[in-house]
Amino acid sequence: MQQKIRIGIVGYGNLGRGVRSAIAQNPDMELVAVFSRRDPKSLEQRGESVRFVHIADVEQFRNDVDVMILCGGSATDLPEQTPQLASLFHTVDSFDTHAKIPAFFETVNTAALEGERVSVISTGWDPGLFSMNRLLAESILPEGKEYTFWGKGVSQGHSDAIRRVPGVQAGVQYTVPVQTAIDLIRSGETPELKTRDKHMRDCYVVAEDGADENAIREAIVSMPNYFSDYNTSVTFITAEELEREHSGMPHGGFVMRSGVTGAGTKQRIEFGLELESNPEFTASVLIAYARAAFKLAAEGQTGARTVFDIPLGHLSPKSAAELRKELL
Amino acid sequence: MQQKIRIGIVGYGNLGRGVRSAIAQNPDMELVAVFSRRDPKSLEQRGESVRFVHIADVEQFRNDVDVMILCGGSATDLPEQTPQLASLFHTVDSFDTHAKIPAFFETVNTAALEGERVSVISTGWDPGLFSMNRLLAESILPEGKEYTFWGKGVSQGHSDAIRRVPGVQAGVQYTVPVQTAIDLIRSGETPELKTRDKHMRDCYVVAEDGADENAIREAIVSMPNYFSDYNTSVTFITAEELEREHSGMPHGGFVMRSGVTGAGTKQRIEFGLELESNPEFTASVLIAYARAAFKLAAEGQTGARTVFDIPLGHLSPKSAAELRKELL
Repeated sequence: MQQKIRIGIVGYGNLGRGVRSAIAQNPDMELVAVFSRRDPKSLEQRGESVRFVHIADVEQFRNDVDVMILCGGSATDLPEQTPQLASLFHTVDSFDTHAKIPAFFETVNTAALEGERVSVISTGWDPGLFSMNRLLAESILPEGKEYTFWGKGVSQGHSDAIRRVPGVQAGVQYTVPVQTAIDLIRSGETPELKTRDKHMRDCYVVAEDGADENAIREAIVSMPNYFSDYNTSVTFITAEELEREHSGMPHGGFVMRSGVTGAGTKQRIEFGLELESNPEFTASVLIAYARAAFKLAAEGQTGARTVFDIPLGHLSPKSAAELRKELL
Repeated sequence: MQQKIRIGIVGYGNLGRGVRSAIAQNPDMELVAVFSRRDPKSLEQRGESVRFVHIADVEQFRNDVDVMILCGGSATDLPEQTPQLASLFHTVDSFDTHAKIPAFFETVNTAALEGERVSVISTGWDPGLFSMNRLLAESILPEGKEYTFWGKGVSQGHSDAIRRVPGVQAGVQYTVPVQTAIDLIRSGETPELKTRDKHMRDCYVVAEDGADENAIREAIVSMPNYFSDYNTSVTFITAEELEREHSGMPHGGFVMRSGVTGAGTKQRIEFGLELESNPEFTASVLIAYARAAFKLAAEGQTGARTVFDIPLGHLSPKSAAELRKELL
């Protein structure tokens, strides 16, 4: 039997826990340790059969971990951690600050080349699978129009914005694609859609005792950047309802491209996801790209890579010959 | 400006004509000539502004064509043409006899390596885009169940089978996915589906004068391999209706994978196509892979490749840096 791919996880929030459980679904991988800024003892107390190590000691694992899966956030964790770790380990991350990806790529590439490692950046589903489908569809149908819809799903940023409104005790926001817009595109139309035409925002809010619900509603729906450009609904619920009905992290969406070929022949390509758990699914994508990083490294490649640079066959534990036989 | 990719087309049926019109949509490409077994004069008489050359003279274009797009059929044309041409040109084809792909790959690989060329085999949408999505979804959700639905679309093989029934003057067959099965999968179920549960077969038939319609219907619906395992409808129409309503070549379908992560969390990945013209769309995929073949060759690669071996970025005329900036 071939040696397993030895995985390390950096960061143990929802995404890190998702990676841990996804490793158990992939027999060609094994988890070496979880690295965290938190005291390993505090994590061990959860009674989990996993080795927890303080991030300060990560360098000692240089020969024990093949691919480090970085599960921190894009705001502050990854801009620091990926370049640091990319010279020591093959890495995979889900850096998703679109505007900063080109600069991030260059920094990580320099580190990975220096350490002779492979670093796959910005995987997941958007950026990630959605980006791949935008590229694929645009390359096949150069004359066309593309639409991305997100949801129905929880937006962390918008949920945080709700919670900052005075009088709000707790709340969650769902981004909801407008079905009539999707149906119009599927019918073959290529409408010009404004922000408001594509997505609605559904808010479920627990108000503090005695708070003015109308004032809260008004503060939310008129909030610039977050809500004022959308049709927003605000529903007040109890803390129990919030806990019972809205503690999941579903998400999903569609990338659609309507194009023409020949003399105006309509052609449509669509890619969609429906996810009961956004972090668990993102974790599963990271796992597949960890395998790809390992395969690229085995070929002698070094440097930073994105989902655009990696042959799909590298995502699979199967050999190229098996894939041709079974899946082509 | 960069030199254009010089394309040759071998075979000038529906697919070859589709490639020709797709080249016009891709400014980084130019058509050098169309190669055919037919007398070039007979093709020129159509009044098209294209250079037609007899296939016997193809070798003279060794230095004038970068990528030869092979538009013949999988039954007899491609098994002969691809290995022959793969040592002279970079090639792309849509060889789709699933069971024979592994052997075909080996033969073409040997020829391409010998001639130091790149040969991309079995592109299009199935095999091709659908295969890529099967691979992608299986790699991300290893615990899951996958479904492929084809249609609504014209099946050439089944249409031919109808036309062989005594008393039938003309006819066309549509493969139609069963919507209730699709809805069930989209609702999160992973049913075991029999052949009959997944697709219906809708036949539109023009009967010869005086033919027994009941006998024709019975002969069609009971035909083994083609129809007996399906729910089949037979509708008799006039030759005019057939010409007016059924002369297009629409097709499409879905690849869906329902999987689980974590503790039974449901996740679904879906890829779908809705095509007004099957050959024009297939042609557009071939064009994108012709570009990929050219890029692979520019990197010094040689040999046979499939859609599983090629980074998606190679399909685009944009550079890797542009793709990271614009599409990731």
